[in-house]
Formats: sequence, structure tokens, C-alpha cells
Amino acid sequence: MRFLFIVPLLCSLSLAAEHVTQYVNPFIGTSNFGATHPGAQYPHGMASVAPFNVAFRAGQENKFEKDQAWNSRVYIHENKFLTGFSHVNLSGVGCPDLGSILLMPTTGALEFDAKKYGSTYHNEQASPGYYRTTLDKYQVDVELSSTLRTGISRYTFPKGQSHILLNLGLGLTNETGGMLKVVSNSEVEGFKMLGTFCYHSEDVRPVYFVAKLSKAAKTAGAWKKMPKYQGVEAEWIGYDDNYKPYKDYRQEVAGDDIGAYFQFDTNEQETITVKLGISYVSIKNARQNLNAEQPGFAFEQTKDKAQQQWQKLLSRVQVKGQPTKKTIFYSALYHSLIHPNIIQDINGDYPLMGQPGIGNTQGKKRYSVYSLWDTNRNLHPLLSLLYPEIQSEMVNSMVAMAKESGWLPKWELLGMETQVMVGDPATVVIADSYLRGIQDFDVIAAYDYAKKAALTLDNNPLRPENKQYTQLGYVPVDDEGKWDGSVSTSLEYYIADWNLAQLAKALDRPQDHQRFLQRAKNYQKLFDSKTGMLRPKYANGQWFSPYDPQLGRNFEPAPGYIEGNAWNYRFYVPHDIPGLINSLGGDQNFIKQLTQTFTTDNFDMANEPDITYPFLFNYVKGEEWRSQQKINQLISTHYHNSPEGIPGNDDAGTLSAWLVFSMMGLYPVSPGDMNYALVTPSFDEISIQLNQAYYAGRTLTLKTQQPPQQAPYIDKMHLNKRELSDYFINHQQLVSGGELIFTLTSKVKK
Amino acid sequence: MRFLFIVPLLCSLSLAAEHVTQYVNPFIGTSNFGATHPGAQYPHGMASVAPFNVAFRAGQENKFEKDQAWNSRVYIHENKFLTGFSHVNLSGVGCPDLGSILLMPTTGALEFDAKKYGSTYHNEQASPGYYRTTLDKYQVDVELSSTLRTGISRYTFPKGQSHILLNLGLGLTNETGGMLKVVSNSEVEGFKMLGTFCYHSEDVRPVYFVAKLSKAAKTAGAWKKMPKYQGVEAEWIGYDDNYKPYKDYRQEVAGDDIGAYFQFDTNEQETITVKLGISYVSIKNARQNLNAEQPGFAFEQTKDKAQQQWQKLLSRVQVKGQPTKKTIFYSALYHSLIHPNIIQDINGDYPLMGQPGIGNTQGKKRYSVYSLWDTNRNLHPLLSLLYPEIQSEMVNSMVAMAKESGWLPKWELLGMETQVMVGDPATVVIADSYLRGIQDFDVIAAYDYAKKAALTLDNNPLRPENKQYTQLGYVPVDDEGKWDGSVSTSLEYYIADWNLAQLAKALDRPQDHQRFLQRAKNYQKLFDSKTGMLRPKYANGQWFSPYDPQLGRNFEPAPGYIEGNAWNYRFYVPHDIPGLINSLGGDQNFIKQLTQTFTTDNFDMANEPDITYPFLFNYVKGEEWRSQQKINQLISTHYHNSPEGIPGNDDAGTLSAWLVFSMMGLYPVSPGDMNYALVTPSFDEISIQLNQAYYAGRTLTLKTQQPPQQAPYIDKMHLNKRELSDYFINHQQLVSGGELIFTLTSKVKK
Repeated sequence: MRFLFIVPLLCSLSLAAEHVTQYVNPFIGTSNFGATHPGAQYPHGMASVAPFNVAFRAGQENKFEKDQAWNSRVYIHENKFLTGFSHVNLSGVGCPDLGSILLMPTTGALEFDAKKYGSTYHNEQASPGYYRTTLDKYQVDVELSSTLRTGISRYTFPKGQSHILLNLGLGLTNETGGMLKVVSNSEVEGFKMLGTFCYHSEDVRPVYFVAKLSKAAKTAGAWKKMPKYQGVEAEWIGYDDNYKPYKDYRQEVAGDDIGAYFQFDTNEQETITVKLGISYVSIKNARQNLNAEQPGFAFEQTKDKAQQQWQKLLSRVQVKGQPTKKTIFYSALYHSLIHPNIIQDINGDYPLMGQPGIGNTQGKKRYSVYSLWDTNRNLHPLLSLLYPEIQSEMVNSMVAMAKESGWLPKWELLGMETQVMVGDPATVVIADSYLRGIQDFDVIAAYDYAKKAALTLDNNPLRPENKQYTQLGYVPVDDEGKWDGSVSTSLEYYIADWNLAQLAKALDRPQDHQRFLQRAKNYQKLFDSKTGMLRPKYANGQWFSPYDPQLGRNFEPAPGYIEGNAWNYRFYVPHDIPGLINSLGGDQNFIKQLTQTFTTDNFDMANEPDITYPFLFNYVKGEEWRSQQKINQLISTHYHNSPEGIPGNDDAGTLSAWLVFSMMGLYPVSPGDMNYALVTPSFDEISIQLNQAYYAGRTLTLKTQQPPQQAPYIDKMHLNKRELSDYFINHQQLVSGGELIFTLTSKVKK
Repeated sequence: MRFLFIVPLLCSLSLAAEHVTQYVNPFIGTSNFGATHPGAQYPHGMASVAPFNVAFRAGQENKFEKDQAWNSRVYIHENKFLTGFSHVNLSGVGCPDLGSILLMPTTGALEFDAKKYGSTYHNEQASPGYYRTTLDKYQVDVELSSTLRTGISRYTFPKGQSHILLNLGLGLTNETGGMLKVVSNSEVEGFKMLGTFCYHSEDVRPVYFVAKLSKAAKTAGAWKKMPKYQGVEAEWIGYDDNYKPYKDYRQEVAGDDIGAYFQFDTNEQETITVKLGISYVSIKNARQNLNAEQPGFAFEQTKDKAQQQWQKLLSRVQVKGQPTKKTIFYSALYHSLIHPNIIQDINGDYPLMGQPGIGNTQGKKRYSVYSLWDTNRNLHPLLSLLYPEIQSEMVNSMVAMAKESGWLPKWELLGMETQVMVGDPATVVIADSYLRGIQDFDVIAAYDYAKKAALTLDNNPLRPENKQYTQLGYVPVDDEGKWDGSVSTSLEYYIADWNLAQLAKALDRPQDHQRFLQRAKNYQKLFDSKTGMLRPKYANGQWFSPYDPQLGRNFEPAPGYIEGNAWNYRFYVPHDIPGLINSLGGDQNFIKQLTQTFTTDNFDMANEPDITYPFLFNYVKGEEWRSQQKINQLISTHYHNSPEGIPGNDDAGTLSAWLVFSMMGLYPVSPGDMNYALVTPSFDEISIQLNQAYYAGRTLTLKTQQPPQQAPYIDKMHLNKRELSDYFINHQQLVSGGELIFTLTSKVKK
């Protein structure tokens, strides 16, 4: 009898703690420009270990070589020539940087030229916090795992002469230069310079590291690529345009292209483990991080711990449904939990924002890698809903950055403001988070910095051309640069102003509220009733002509627009869709134009400006089925359990966050607007464990009464048994917990 | 009456302490490949500050550009385009290295490219410990001085925008790479990699530095030369093959070509002083050195102290005679007191020899830059005679090197054995020093290391091919490399063996004495009675044929010989000239052949193998006048008070030491042989203050009874009133002090 009791108990436990990490496929997004990597990754880790297969052999083993085209990827699934495993990596970012500090095991003759020591590979496997492969050329098994600030690599060598190489010359970043010091036959320390983000940034930042090996090498040394000498010097010089070894050398080596090597006589199947800790503050801190997070060489424990941490976060949402859907869902949630990543050392040290020097978090966390033009739209709202304690830390970091640099971040990378993309997205994130209930930050300071950005007319790094924007109500097209579209910029400023207005209201500042609300309505000044587009306009009030709303579709420069064309931006006033509908002549024309966006191939699922559009049908009564249908269609068309399973650059998790929301059947219509648009969930049941430190509810459960694959349309919805009157639900309602029941139907309900 | 007493007293004091530094012309040797520099130099200083004018503008302002030919010079008098002031420099060395850490003041627009910011200059002045010039392009006055381990630069700027640049990318060394960190608006620290000595060495060594400015800059930052990008990347990258600024950046920068800058608004005639300390151990030590030796920015005091230190050393020899002769004499003595230089930090730290790690001298000195193939011949014997306490420190350093690395040095550079040139010269220096009376070192250890070099047959880094040498009695020509002449090498080994034999005798080891004496006589196996040459021989005993004794005259590879031809080496058995005379068939043929060496232009005053030859006439009774004549002739032909005043590479002071000895009328016939050959002194009186810690005498005075320019030949000589019976004098006699009187005659005395 007792036995019978135990079985269901175990089952129930097992259900509650289903190992959802099994559903994560880290290869999703590694093709089709997704720019994710399949390497060992800890949630929000500042270190990660990724296979690096984008260098050399262009058009041969490597279809996409990093220097042949714009490339922001350390790993591309189609590529086959691997030249190491990088320890600092960006995920889903559209500009090249990081992808540096490469370890590589080799065998046979010692070779320093990655062109020559690179190898094809097979038998890849990846799961959260773990990656493995076998190098064809060397028959070395490589296994990787990581913690927040360290990577660990376990190499299983064949019998013979074996090497472990550390290459600081090769990497994704276009910034050159590094320094290293072989401390002993089992340790190396140094730094690699990162930066030159998007090719043009002048800001740079060293990443410091310490690597320790589980076995002392027979010999160890360094190398450096010597330059190309000319004329007679080329005859005399020992290493001309070639790699020079520094055997048994134990002082610093610095240069553009340097490395360290460790040589071993290995036995058959001998494993050697390397652990590598990083810091953005100092070598000393990198060593402290390594000693704290990786005291031994416990590969399995590191792997288990990473997996547990992922399980802990991912299982905050439990879903029931088709395994493949679970895979794309949890993989997307996984990709939503990589950036922003922590940057403070174990002792709290971190590089100050926008100024020299080191700060200390005093026990708190400091985040970095804010791709805010992307992530303000849905990633931060998703974190706010599912992980408000993390979103709080991120907002706190943003406010700290403003206190250090004088300005909120826009595209912050390792404490550097890279000024990539347009708008004032930090204001949006701060207002949205506060309104959602994340209020444990210095909101007065945050508000003041946001207001500073909104009101500083000249020399405003966050809002270029804010003077004209303020005076004219829009950014004029007159002196527009190649990549700062006047319409796009204006639209982002309207959203920021609208969010600022909402925050002003919440903070009981009615004058500010009115003022910024008014500014946010100025989008109407760019509305061209003739074309129905938000159209570039000169300072003198004349429309930009000749005007082609299609221009910009393929990322080519288009006056007025950045990363998109007029169609991609035409509904981009998410804070005032009813107003836009009115401008467009009412519901029917709006639905017509919105539908046309999709039918004329003017919708781009791979970029941010228009990703809210499929939900906009919800704004017109009786047309909500179109959103349900469109979302279903977009998910099945663009998201797959395969390397090409993300439509384009994941954009630091933004396209993944879109999927997570969409599959849960809800989507934040606009940051700062607490309504989610509702569509058909992809699962039979979705259970969200709410954080009661922030939210009243304990659990929110979304259930479909019918299998969604058979009944894709919503018939009706009940929240805690009360039927919903429309296809929106308020954030406060949701986080109060309870059950949202979707009654589905196979037929369109008009 | 009292007044009359005072005058002669002052005169006498004034005579005793004549400011002999006024006779030093640091420009001597800066043309004609002398390879000395006119910069600010402290005696045996490890830092110095030299104008650097060998980069760019080849064939235009710069007649000899550093990359257009083999170049070992930081400064060439004919050149006119200056690109900075280097803080580590070699003097009179034939291979390029050091010449790095360049400071440069500029004005106007900030420019990082030395090709562009370089300037012509005028109004150069130089004296021991001081150099000045005015930069034409900027109208900036530059004044330089230095201590043992620091340099100090005083710049006087015009009114306007002014800059101080620190360039680690430019320099004489062919080793690339460095690191720097702008610590504040008035301080920068870092290191520059040195090495690749003679183009081919694989050994490298960082030199660390800290520089502090007397005034905080308005702005300060770093720069780096970005590489040449290819294809589409070249379009996107911000700095393609160009200098990228890192404004207000305060972390480390590393790379092949980097620098730091400090910007000022200067007033008319505003002076800014920069002090820069170096260390071969660490940045921390460089800072300690700087703080200890240069606590303020006291330019004048630094200059005075350097001059006083030079005065202290140079005045150990006081001469009376023509001012021009005094100038070439004291300039030569000055050039004899630069290398070897100290390398230990103020706290005693220094880089260990031939192994990683740091040693500490425990209050003693550690020397470096031993060009022993050159300096064993005369520089060390000169130091032994004039500065035995310094020679003792140098020998102690050599023994310490052997204890650290297992081998005595050959061509030691900054703790690296560069293996340049041939032979086993350290054995020679040690035996010679000991025999001269410098015995306060671990002679047993030194002897053991010398013996180890003599007897280790295989894998002998000091004596390659020692096995064949030992077995055959000579190094066979069979498998000779391009630059390791079998005859030259054998001859060096014979001298080393002979010196080792002398030391064995002194240490009462009769068996060793006999053994090494025998080996030293094996030169006869290379004596070819047919040609009268020391000729390359195969292992099977056959002479190398066809044989051209002229080959090698212009430094082209010549089988058997290095840096010379058969003629240059034909008398190169200084330890057994009587034996060689015998082999050559007696006195008359010897004199004939020796004379022919000079008449057929087969004597090279600019290189070491044959520089003893003009003294060899002394070995034949009645022919000594030829040495007197020849030395007079060589001095007046090759040594001048002008930039071309040294016949060729000074070779770390060797050609200068030749001049010092020759002008004093004595020359050590062979290291290990305590006899000096006597020739006509160049002065009326030479007074040497002997170091009584080593020598019995207090003063040695050499006087010519007649003015040597009018009576160039020796009639007779009296040492302490006893007439000498031949034209040699023993070291022990000399250092017992007293007077050596030369009675001169205008006629040849046969």
C-alpha cells in the first residue's frame, strides 16, 4: 500500500520539476543569420565557450567567412572549419564583436597558424551549459561547460604529442591587440582588446583572463605573428610575416596577433581540462573569479550546475503540448536569458560606464550588453512578467549607468555606449518596468535622466537632433545621415515621450504627463494622408520627394528610415493605434492596409520595427481572428527546431522573446501600455510561476480547452471564470494569477 | 702675501680636478657606422635618451633609413628627419635592437603617424649627460638628461596647442609589440618588447616603463595603428591601416603599433618636463626606479649629477696635451664606459639569465650587454687597469649568469644569450681579469664553468663543434654554416684554451694547465706553410680548396672566416706570436708579411680580428718603430673629433678602448698575457689614478720628455728610473705605480 502512494507522488514531483532543459536546442538560430551560438552558456553569463568556425576557408569548408561579409557570428551551422573555442561571445547580435580568447586542442607537429591548425569536426551535441564535438584532424573530443564568469574545456586526446593553444590574434572582434603571460607550465594570464563594435566604434575595452590547466605541460611558451618585412630586411629577419615561437618564455608578450601554447605527451584517451576565468576589470579579478567559481577541474559538476540554473529559470514556465513546440518555446526562452549579462566580478568590481575607472556593486548585480532598440519592445516586458527580480537588476544597472555617465544607455556594450541604432529606448524600458510593478529602483533619478534626454536640445548623445524634433515636432529629413532615418528616429522619440508621459503620470507629475503626451502625438505631423505612410518631411514642412515607400526593404539606405522601409514603419505608433486607425480613415482601411502589408511582402519577421503588426488586428472588433491566424502562420513559417529556426538576427533575444510571448498567446502591444494582445496559445497548458515579491498572484495558468493545432481560433476566453469582453488583457490582471481559459474553435470567429 | 699663497693652491686644485667632461664630444661615432649616439647618457646607465632620426624619408632627409639596410643606429649624423627620443639604446653595437620608447613633442593638429609628425632640427648640442636641439617644424626646444635608470626631457613650447607623444610602435628593435596604460593626465606606464637581435634571435624581453609629466594634460589618451583590412571590411571599418585614437581611455592598450598622447594649451616659452623610468623586471619597479632617481622634475640637477659622475670616472686619467687629442681621448674613454651597463633595479631586482624569473643582487650590481667577442680583447683589460672595481662587478655578473643559466655568456643582451659571433670569450675575460689582480669573485665556480665550456663535447651552446675541435684539434670546414667560420672559431677556441691554461696555472692546477696549453698550440694544425695563412681544413686533413685569402674582405661569406678574410686572421694567435713567427719562417718573413698586410689594404681598422696587428712589430727587435709609426698613422687616419671619428662600429666601446690604450702608448698584446706592447704616447703626460683596493700603486704617470707630435719615435723608456730592456711592460709593474718616462726622438730608432 505504501508503495502505491509513492508512485503518484514521484510522478507529481516529476511533473512539477520536469527537466525542461531537455527541450532546449542551442543549435536553433545558428543558421539563417540568427547569430546565436551553440556553445556552453550559463544564464546571463559574462563568459561562455562557443565553437568558432567563421575564420578562413571562405567558399570551401566555410560558406560564410567572417571577413568576406558583414558577420556578427562566432558559429555558423553551415560552416565546417573550426579554429577554436571562444570565451566571450555575443548571442544574436547584428554587429561583430567579442568572439575572442580562443582555446584549441591540437596534436602532432606544433602549429601556430590557425589557418593551418583548424579542423573540421563531427558529432556535435549541445544542451544548456554543455557542448561537445570531435575534431576530425586530431581525433580529439572537446567538451565545454561554463559558469557565470568562467569556461571549462575538457579535451580527450589520443596517444602522442598533444597541444593546447590559446589564440588572442584570432576572433570576431575587429579590435586588435592583446597581452599574455605564461605564468607556469599550467597557467596563462592576459587580456584581449575588444571593441570597434559594428566596425566603426572607437571605444575599446580589454577583457582580462586567467587560464589554468589540469596538467602541467612538458613545455609551454608564447608566439607572435611577426609583420611583413620589406626589401633586404625580409632576407635577414627570422620570421617574416610568420609566427615566431617564444619557447619557455615567461614574461609578457604583447602584439596584434599573439598566443600561448602548452605541449604534452598524452596517453590514449587522456583527458586534460582547462578552466578559464574572465573579468572586465583586471587579471587579478579574473583569477579571483576563476578560483571562486571553478576551484577544481570539476567538469561534470560545472555542467550540472549550469543545467540546474537553466532548469531553475526555464521551469518558471511549464507547458504541456507537442514536444517540437516545447523545443522551440524553451529554446526561445533560453535565448531570452543570455543578454543583458552580468559583468561584475565575484568581488563586485565592474568597469564604470562612459568614464575611466572601476565601480563596485556592493553585493548587487551589474548587467551589460543592452541592445535596447531591439529589446525594449518585448524582451524586457517578458523579463518583467516572468523574472521581475532580474528585470529589476537590469533597470537598476541602467540607472547606475546614467549616474556614472550622465546618460541612460542606448546600445551599451561592456560599459561603452556604442550609439548604435536610433531612439531613446532606455526611457521606454524604465517606464514600462515601473508600470508593470518593478519599482525597487531609484525611479526619481531614472525619471530625471529620461527627462534630461527628452529636453536637452543640443549635444544630446541619446537623442541627436532633439532640438529640431522639439521645435518642429519631428526630425526633419534635411540633414539626415546615411543611417539615422529621420522618420524612424522621430517614431522612436514619440514612443519614448509617450512612455515618459506614462511614468510622469505614475509619479504624479501631471504637467509633465500632458507635455510629453502632446509630443507623442506629433507623429501625426509625419502622417501623409496621400500615401498613408509616415513620410520623411523637410524642416520647411514639405514632404520628401520623390518618395518610394518600398525603398529600404533590403537594408539599403532609405531616406527617412533605418533598417526598414516605409511599410515596415507605417504602423509604428504602438502607443496610439486607435489614433493611427483614425488617421488612416477608420477600421476598414486600416485592416486593408495592414493586410496588404503582409500580402505584398512588406512585412519583415526578421527585424524589429514591424514585429507588433500581426497583433494589430486585435484593435478592430471582429478582425481578431486575423491576428490569431497570422501569428500561427508566422510561427510555423519562421520558427523551427533547426539551425535556421530563428527568422534572422535574434537581436539579443528579441525575436526569441517574440516567440515566447506569441506561443503563450499574449503580446505586449506597446511598452508602457499594460495591455497584452491575446492570440491562440500554442500549448494545451501554460503555467507561469509568478514572483510574489513583485506580483500578487502565485501562479498564472493559461489553458486551451481544445488542442490548438486542431482548433486554432479563439471562441471565447475566461479569466478566473469571467469571460473577457475583448482580445486584450491587462498586465495587472495577469499577474494577479489564476486561470485564463481559452475556448478554441476550428472555425474563424468573425 | 696670503693672497699669493692662495693662487697656486687653486691652480693646483684646478689641475687635479680639471673638468675633463668638456673634452667629450658625444657626436664622435655618429657617422661612418660608429653606431654611437649623442643622447643623454649616464655612465653604465640602463636608460639613456637619444635623438632618433633613422626612420622614414629614405633618400630624402634621411640618407640611411633603418629599414633600407642593416642598421644598428638610433641616430646618424647625416640624417635630418627626427621622429622622437628613445629611452633604451645600445651604443656602438653592430646589430639592431632597443632604440625604443620614443617621446616626441609636437604642436598644432594632433598627429599619431611618425612619418607625418617627424621634423628636421637644428642647434644640436651634446655633452656627457646632456643633449639639446630645436625642432624646426614645431619650434620646440628639446633638452635631455638621464640617470642610471631614468631619462628626463625638458620641452620648451611656443604658445598654442602642444602635445607630448609616446610611441611604442616605432623603434630600432625589430621585435614588435607593446602595452601601455594612460594612468592619468600626467602619467603613462607600460612595456615595449625588445629582442630579435640581429634580426634572427628568437629571444625577447619586455622593457617596462613609467613616465610622468610635470603638468597635467588637458586631455590624454592612447592610439593604435589598425591593420589593413580587405574587401568589404575595408569599407566598413573606421580606421583602415590607420591610427585610431582612444580619447580619455584609461585601460590597457596592447598591439604592434601603439602610443599615448598628452595635449596642452601652452603659453609662449612654456616648459613641460617628462621623466621616464625603466625596468627590465616590472612596471612597479620602473615606478620605484623613477621615484628614487627622479623624485621631482629637477632637470638641471639631473644634468649636473650625470656630468659629475662622468667627471668622477673620466678624470681617473688626466692627460696633458693638445686639446683635440684630449677630445678624441676622453670621448673614447666615455664610449668605453657605456656597456656593459647595469640592469638591476634600485631594489636589486633583475631578470635571470637564460631562464624565466627574477633575481636580486642583494645590494650588488648586475651588468648586461656583453659583446664579448669584441670587448674581451681590450675593453675589459682597459676597465681592469683603470676601473678594476667596475671590472670586478662585471666579472661577478658573468659568473652569476653562469650560475643561473649553466653557461658563461657570449653575447649577452638583457639576460638573453643571443649567440652572436663565435668563440668562448667569457673564459678569456675571466682569466685575464683574475691574472690582472681582480680576484674578488667566485673564481672556482668561474673556472668550472669555463672548463665546462672547454670540455663539453656535445650540445655545447658556447662552443659549437667542440667535439671535432677537441678530437681534431680544429673545427673542420666540412659542415660550416654561413656565419660560423671554422678557422675563426678555432682561433677563438685556442685563445680561450690558452687563457684557461693560464688560469689553471694561477689556481695551481698543473694538469689542466698543460692540457689546455697543448690545445692552444693546435693552431699550428691550421697553419698552411704554402700560403702562410691559417687556412680552413677538412676533417680528413685536406686543405680547403680552391682558396682565396682575399675572400671575406667586404663582410661577404668566406669559408673559414667570419667578419674578415684570411689576412685579417693570419696573425690572430696573440697568445703565441713567437710560435707563429717561427712557423712563418722567422722574424724577417714575419715582418714582411705583417707589413704587407697593411700595404695591400688587408688590414681593417674597423673590425676586431686584426686590431692587435699594428703592435706586433714589437715582437721583433729593431722593428718596434714600425708599431710606433703605424699606431700614430692609424690614430690620425681613423680617429677624429667629428661624427666620423670612429673607424666603424664602436662595438660596445672596443674601437674606443683601442684608442684609449693606443694614445696612452700601451696595448695589451693578448688577454691573459700580462704584457702591454709599448708605443709612443699621444700626450705629454698621462696620469692614472690607480685603485688601491686592487693595486699597490697610487698613481701611474706616463711622461714624454719631448712633444710626441714632434718626436714620434721612442728612443728609450725608464720605469721609475730603470731603463726598460724591451718594448713591453708587465701589468704588475704598471699597477705598482710610479713614472714611466718616454724619451722620444724624431728619427726612427732601428
